[in-house]
Amino acid sequence: MMEANKQHLQDITETLAGITESCEAGIQRRSYSSKFREAVLYIKKEMEKIGLTVREDTVGNLFGMLPGSEVDLPEIMSGSHLDTVRCAGAFDGAAGVVCALEAARMIKESDQPMRHPYTVFGTVGEEGTRFGQVLLGSRFMTGSITNSDLDTVKDLESGESLRSVLSAYGLNGDIQSASLFNRKIKAFVELHGEQGPVLDQSGKEIGIVQSIAGIAWIKVTVIGQAGHSGTVPMGYRKDAGIAAYEMIIDMNTYVMEKYIHSATMTVGQLTLNPGSSNCIPGKAVFTVDFRSGNKEILQDLVETIYQEASVKEKDGYQISVCVLNRRDPVNMNQNIQSAIRESCEELGYSYQYLNSGAGHDSMIFAPFWPTAMIFLPNKDGISHNPKEYISWDEMKKGTEVLYHTLRHLDRLDDEPQN
Amino acid sequence: MMEANKQHLQDITETLAGITESCEAGIQRRSYSSKFREAVLYIKKEMEKIGLTVREDTVGNLFGMLPGSEVDLPEIMSGSHLDTVRCAGAFDGAAGVVCALEAARMIKESDQPMRHPYTVFGTVGEEGTRFGQVLLGSRFMTGSITNSDLDTVKDLESGESLRSVLSAYGLNGDIQSASLFNRKIKAFVELHGEQGPVLDQSGKEIGIVQSIAGIAWIKVTVIGQAGHSGTVPMGYRKDAGIAAYEMIIDMNTYVMEKYIHSATMTVGQLTLNPGSSNCIPGKAVFTVDFRSGNKEILQDLVETIYQEASVKEKDGYQISVCVLNRRDPVNMNQNIQSAIRESCEELGYSYQYLNSGAGHDSMIFAPFWPTAMIFLPNKDGISHNPKEYISWDEMKKGTEVLYHTLRHLDRLDDEPQN
Repeated sequence: MMEANKQHLQDITETLAGITESCEAGIQRRSYSSKFREAVLYIKKEMEKIGLTVREDTVGNLFGMLPGSEVDLPEIMSGSHLDTVRCAGAFDGAAGVVCALEAARMIKESDQPMRHPYTVFGTVGEEGTRFGQVLLGSRFMTGSITNSDLDTVKDLESGESLRSVLSAYGLNGDIQSASLFNRKIKAFVELHGEQGPVLDQSGKEIGIVQSIAGIAWIKVTVIGQAGHSGTVPMGYRKDAGIAAYEMIIDMNTYVMEKYIHSATMTVGQLTLNPGSSNCIPGKAVFTVDFRSGNKEILQDLVETIYQEASVKEKDGYQISVCVLNRRDPVNMNQNIQSAIRESCEELGYSYQYLNSGAGHDSMIFAPFWPTAMIFLPNKDGISHNPKEYISWDEMKKGTEVLYHTLRHLDRLDDEPQN
Repeated sequence: MMEANKQHLQDITETLAGITESCEAGIQRRSYSSKFREAVLYIKKEMEKIGLTVREDTVGNLFGMLPGSEVDLPEIMSGSHLDTVRCAGAFDGAAGVVCALEAARMIKESDQPMRHPYTVFGTVGEEGTRFGQVLLGSRFMTGSITNSDLDTVKDLESGESLRSVLSAYGLNGDIQSASLFNRKIKAFVELHGEQGPVLDQSGKEIGIVQSIAGIAWIKVTVIGQAGHSGTVPMGYRKDAGIAAYEMIIDMNTYVMEKYIHSATMTVGQLTLNPGSSNCIPGKAVFTVDFRSGNKEILQDLVETIYQEASVKEKDGYQISVCVLNRRDPVNMNQNIQSAIRESCEELGYSYQYLNSGAGHDSMIFAPFWPTAMIFLPNKDGISHNPKEYISWDEMKKGTEVLYHTLRHLDRLDDEPQN
């Protein structure tokens, strides 16, 4: 049986982590920076070592293909992103590229070539670090970034357009040729750290992602009556803060009682006006971040906040509820989920199904091609943090599950492609 | 029967309101500014018109005395402050000076001199506008400002010391001679706008203050566990925001159920960390402002917040409760309260007893001399605001109640003074 090589996984992950811009803590590779270029060159070199045919597209995504034994079959792809958040750990994005690369080595060294071409990829711009927009690389691949976006998307710090950043980086930014619709794709499999505590606490070795959560981002404004903290008796008050807390607690209780395993609610920002310790808040503004893998649940939560608002309006508050952003859940492909599960069973690795609360490139691919994700446990559930850690044992198991999954997919008949 | 002259009250109040520094809205007279000097000179002139003997103390408080018919009796004093908050209305402080002045005119014109000297006063530095410290004038009068305070108390904007501000204003700042312990005082009566909605909503014409509320200012810090809004399921969370809201709602319910008429609780500031819409708050910090006219209630509230904190600590949060400031309630003199009540009854003006949630110079005088306050209704309970308004009718009634109260006090035997 082919085994993943833990030392390879560690060496490549650590070398990649060493390719970092200076930052307060941890690592940082902004898209199209010189360190991003260095990381791409390093992974190219590792791809070439294994014998992959390397190409970089016109917008900075990297691909390394191992040809299949049969002609004209669609590609099976695996990878993740090569850019990072600020003060990142060594695994977010990198783990998916490194394990996909190690799986390529295993295929190559198995002396049993796959029927389908196998392509390892590393995307650019998945994190919003440089441009404030996420999932750029995968959106280029699916043709959803337009030519005018190249001019309107700007570097958050310098204000430079994406077009001129691409040009300075040495890419022509041609949108048509970056689209994967020019190619035949059989499946995407993305391996990633869970970024949450579920696997770490359950002790399961592998997470099989059922869906990437939909989100609703909502801003709620509560208008009451400001006043002096000393001179307005309790019975005369319309304290916007208290009204806001009551709404939040009611909603939180509702989510805890009804959807504890199937949705999340987060109030990450809350501001009071006037905001002095001796002033009754006349206004409270807060954000609500709802997430669920189930579209109906998300809809119910959004409706419930409107109901909460109308209850408070009867008490004399003015409430405005503004849905800032909304995205439906994206289901992962059932056949690939089954292939992952069977691979775990063959290998004797424990697994559990879960949803991804965070967004991933896979979310962009899934509407167009069969797509699924393998999650590995992040120690203490910590991610987007220098302390982020996936053990080399877990990386090895993840790579082996990925390898078996690729073999499963390779055996499946191909859907006719247009 | 002597009546107060509405036109005098309006003219003097409006002239005083016209003596203002430039500000965004409403009026502003910072202590020791050239406009403060102009206001003092104007009130001096009005005092002299009535025949009062004017003196300014060494720290900027203004006094105008009408001698009594008997020798060596202690003074009965009435007045309020001449400085203002930023963007103030025309009545806060000014009303108490203007009505006391009109009462002096009524005494003078009654052809029935008082036995005791009657002194109208206007204090400096009651508001914290310039120095960030309140009640300066009255604290000078009671000897509680020390020589070293003159150097450590600084202008919030320029950083100049109080000593050098006094000197630039033309005063020597001699602390001993500013103390009223050099004089014999029978009573203080301060007339003031309520600064809250109680009289405005009850429709009562006169408020008789029973006590000036004690306060406890508390800062509460709740430490939970930060995390990504998408990746940490509800059951795994330690959301510091939710814990803070639960504490606040519990406390608010307790105050509403047990002390709705006898205490207030205000959470005027609340901040969440990290403070991003997609981050579970790992830390929440909020202020609590408790006020009550009853010392035991205040003590109970402070204890209750410690109990709330220990309940939440059992749920796995770390809570710190820090009492930033604490001041006991100050009771107003019972005999003067009775004199005010009898005056209302004689005049046929409706009245009610209430507490002052805000601080006043009277709070500083009360431990040393018999002191009480007359409140007038602020329209819609609005104060510290350009819209602040007390009708001229209400000012007239207030002045007449003050005049009758002074007459009552004048008839009372004098306590022996040291």
